[in-house]
Amino acid sequence: MSKAKTAISPTRAENYPEWYQQVIAAADMAENSGVRGCMVIKPWGLSVWENIKQHLDTELKKTGHKNAYFPLFIPVSYLAKEAEHVEGFAKECAVITHHRLEAGPDGGLVPAGPLEEPLVVRPTSETIIGESFSRWIESHRDLPLLINQWANVVRWEMRTRLFLRTAEFLWQEGHTAHASAEDAMRETKMIHDIYVTLAQDVLAMPVIAGEKTAVERFPGADNTFTIEAMMQDRKALQAGTAHFLGQNFAKSNNIRFTDKDDQLKHVWTTSWGVSTRLVGGLLMTHSDDDGFVCPPRLAPVHVVLLPILFKADNPAAILEYCESLAKELSALQFAGRPVEVEVDARDISGGEKLWSWIKKGVPVRVEIGPRDMAQNAVFMGRRDKPHKEKRGVPRDEFVATLPALLEEIQTSLFERALAYRKQNTRTIDTEAEFIEYFTAPSAKSGPTPIHGGFALSHFSGDEATEEKLKKEHGVTVRCIPNEGQLDGTHEPGKCIFTGKPSSQRVVWAKAY
Amino acid sequence: MSKAKTAISPTRAENYPEWYQQVIAAADMAENSGVRGCMVIKPWGLSVWENIKQHLDTELKKTGHKNAYFPLFIPVSYLAKEAEHVEGFAKECAVITHHRLEAGPDGGLVPAGPLEEPLVVRPTSETIIGESFSRWIESHRDLPLLINQWANVVRWEMRTRLFLRTAEFLWQEGHTAHASAEDAMRETKMIHDIYVTLAQDVLAMPVIAGEKTAVERFPGADNTFTIEAMMQDRKALQAGTAHFLGQNFAKSNNIRFTDKDDQLKHVWTTSWGVSTRLVGGLLMTHSDDDGFVCPPRLAPVHVVLLPILFKADNPAAILEYCESLAKELSALQFAGRPVEVEVDARDISGGEKLWSWIKKGVPVRVEIGPRDMAQNAVFMGRRDKPHKEKRGVPRDEFVATLPALLEEIQTSLFERALAYRKQNTRTIDTEAEFIEYFTAPSAKSGPTPIHGGFALSHFSGDEATEEKLKKEHGVTVRCIPNEGQLDGTHEPGKCIFTGKPSSQRVVWAKAY
Repeated sequence: MSKAKTAISPTRAENYPEWYQQVIAAADMAENSGVRGCMVIKPWGLSVWENIKQHLDTELKKTGHKNAYFPLFIPVSYLAKEAEHVEGFAKECAVITHHRLEAGPDGGLVPAGPLEEPLVVRPTSETIIGESFSRWIESHRDLPLLINQWANVVRWEMRTRLFLRTAEFLWQEGHTAHASAEDAMRETKMIHDIYVTLAQDVLAMPVIAGEKTAVERFPGADNTFTIEAMMQDRKALQAGTAHFLGQNFAKSNNIRFTDKDDQLKHVWTTSWGVSTRLVGGLLMTHSDDDGFVCPPRLAPVHVVLLPILFKADNPAAILEYCESLAKELSALQFAGRPVEVEVDARDISGGEKLWSWIKKGVPVRVEIGPRDMAQNAVFMGRRDKPHKEKRGVPRDEFVATLPALLEEIQTSLFERALAYRKQNTRTIDTEAEFIEYFTAPSAKSGPTPIHGGFALSHFSGDEATEEKLKKEHGVTVRCIPNEGQLDGTHEPGKCIFTGKPSSQRVVWAKAY
Repeated sequence: MSKAKTAISPTRAENYPEWYQQVIAAADMAENSGVRGCMVIKPWGLSVWENIKQHLDTELKKTGHKNAYFPLFIPVSYLAKEAEHVEGFAKECAVITHHRLEAGPDGGLVPAGPLEEPLVVRPTSETIIGESFSRWIESHRDLPLLINQWANVVRWEMRTRLFLRTAEFLWQEGHTAHASAEDAMRETKMIHDIYVTLAQDVLAMPVIAGEKTAVERFPGADNTFTIEAMMQDRKALQAGTAHFLGQNFAKSNNIRFTDKDDQLKHVWTTSWGVSTRLVGGLLMTHSDDDGFVCPPRLAPVHVVLLPILFKADNPAAILEYCESLAKELSALQFAGRPVEVEVDARDISGGEKLWSWIKKGVPVRVEIGPRDMAQNAVFMGRRDKPHKEKRGVPRDEFVATLPALLEEIQTSLFERALAYRKQNTRTIDTEAEFIEYFTAPSAKSGPTPIHGGFALSHFSGDEATEEKLKKEHGVTVRCIPNEGQLDGTHEPGKCIFTGKPSSQRVVWAKAY
């Protein structure tokens, strides 16, 4: 059986995890470093993250949040204040014990200057920010306090994967304090909505929004809200979480305020974050066997112009045509920023050049040779379509319709991902079908076993069942979907495992 | 003797270091944290840094630099590769030795999971980025490689001061590789120029641009170029440095390329950075005894509107007038971004409200009461003038001239700082006068001894003299000024310490 040549080898069907690594390498987005579990984010990958950051930062500022910056280091005694929290993070943290290096007995450098109290590199900042909040907040007039931090954090992961799970990662973490439970819950849900919009409208990544079960909650939270996306191996990716922390951290950090009734009360807090993991989700959602496919709203470059100089009588004229077109396109706006155009005049083969941009995921490619120039036209290909599907377009028309074309590509990527998720989501009403769905590798799979996908099944909330399914099959409740998220999930029924009454179906899946 | 009441106590003349702390507290910009040497950067302070970052990032991208992100941790063996470099940083670094916490014998948490090789939290990233460069660079076609990183770094400082010297700080560090010494030197000097422009045109902070002596060079550099500013206690602040690293790091990291002549050669590298220290410099350059004075180009808020509601018959109408004015002002542009306007409708006393914005350094304050509204006018004060100097302006005129007014304030701050530096810079031709200049406290000084300022004196470059002056009087060569920087410094003469010939005067000062 012959197969079409692909730019990425292996293909998704052949070996999904390896395909993912190869897509990242081919798009030149990141690489493993010599430091265990830490990645180097290369310019193309960081640019995508910077664009995500730009979108989210704007939304957070619009809704009254202000950026601040807190220490990288957390004294162990701070971390220990909240019992569940420290339990959740103590097992995987970088511990600083010394503040100097000096020559050791064999001439090498050894740690010196022991610290009185060890410090931990922040895995998340509830405890250190809580310490500030306890000093900043005195009265109800200081509330709500709406703080966000863009920072790096470290969780000592044993098994890492570029962007999806790394020891150090970049993120934003929001921390807010409120005068009432209602206000804090309203904030948590508003952020949850902002994350849904970010994922769907900016990353073109469909998500199911819902609440986590107790087993899957953030250590120290009363409620955790999540957005869950389906990757192309049908696994779920938790793409962002917002936590209602009740008064847990307020009590452990002694964050109190004098209310309007002159009573001293503990505040109610929230915390929430998205990270460079989103770039991994983006890669796994849209990329194909030819490489990365970048949604236009996040693309570092929207349009690449490829002058075809090989055998051209007048290469300078073609370059000039490209530069003037680039200038015209750069004056256009798409989704609130100028259209980014690159002219690739490198002296390498046309095929190598073309494929380098396909693999990088640039939404629109334009080839310009002597004939296109003579006809005042361009020869255009879209990254969301097969690479051979190209067409000639008059230059003026191309310029006039480019923003609409980018919008169309953005939408088509979202629709395609949504259709994929729908195809691979099944309503399941018996335990037997459920187990079969998650254990029988599909006929399509190569060395990577690909299971069924998402299951929508009734569940009574029994924690022992949840732990058992996780342990035996690696299947977890991704979320209890919000009202209106998925048709037909909010009718009552019976738990398929225990037979107990269940108020709604939940989303089950294997997950990253 | 009676004295005018000031918002900041003590004043600059009374106790400069304490005044600085109080200015930061009054403007709510930063505070010391519970973690030794680490500060919390509060929203107002971080916003100033984000504006600096925005300006510089745009310039760096325009000149072909791309942002990337490298690991926070550096294995000790990497750091040890460059001998001078490790010598410079080993004495003050955070060392990670474990990756877990577990319950200790007394129930507290103790470090567990010892690492095979300790890691250092990056004090700067030459060695870790060099490791990547050695893999990324193969041929002359890969050069120049122009990378910048925005990151946090840690140097374990014993004596810290908010913004100016903290254990953790935020910065950008550029790292570039080139095919020739000339290219690398051209890059170093271009960045040096970009830093001068940033300091002078954006921070309104006059700087002297020049080269460091060997004694003051970055550990591992062949040449270090610096920008030096004068603070209001007449000390110098090193505000940004650009290093020509020769082939030192290329050799220690084995960064080689195949040149056009098919020979395998080591690259030539540069590195350069500015940090949150700039915010400290900004504060010390412009602030007065009433608090921070923020140059308009960096101001988080350009204009604050203060409705005077006390005793007003119709407070709602005044608020409406303010909101409509705010809307009109927000549509204006200043220095490439929309004018930022804030309406302060807090229910606190008018005086407290007014002074809170004076202390925060907002360039333009506008008070609006019933009479102003009736006359369709505003009552306006500029932060660069005494706070009592206010005047009524017709609303239309105020709107039409605001961008020009902001530009005028920007310029006046620069001119004022430059005049101060000139007043406190003396050409000195004898050792006796030199010593007297730096040791006799001026009549103006309070408990803070204030020395003369900058001295321009001939120096033959003798390192022993330099070390002696540093040790005995805390005076160092801030820089050998570039051609054209200071009138009359480039004529040959005789070293005032050794009598040896000297090709030019250098800048001497006490420094932060």
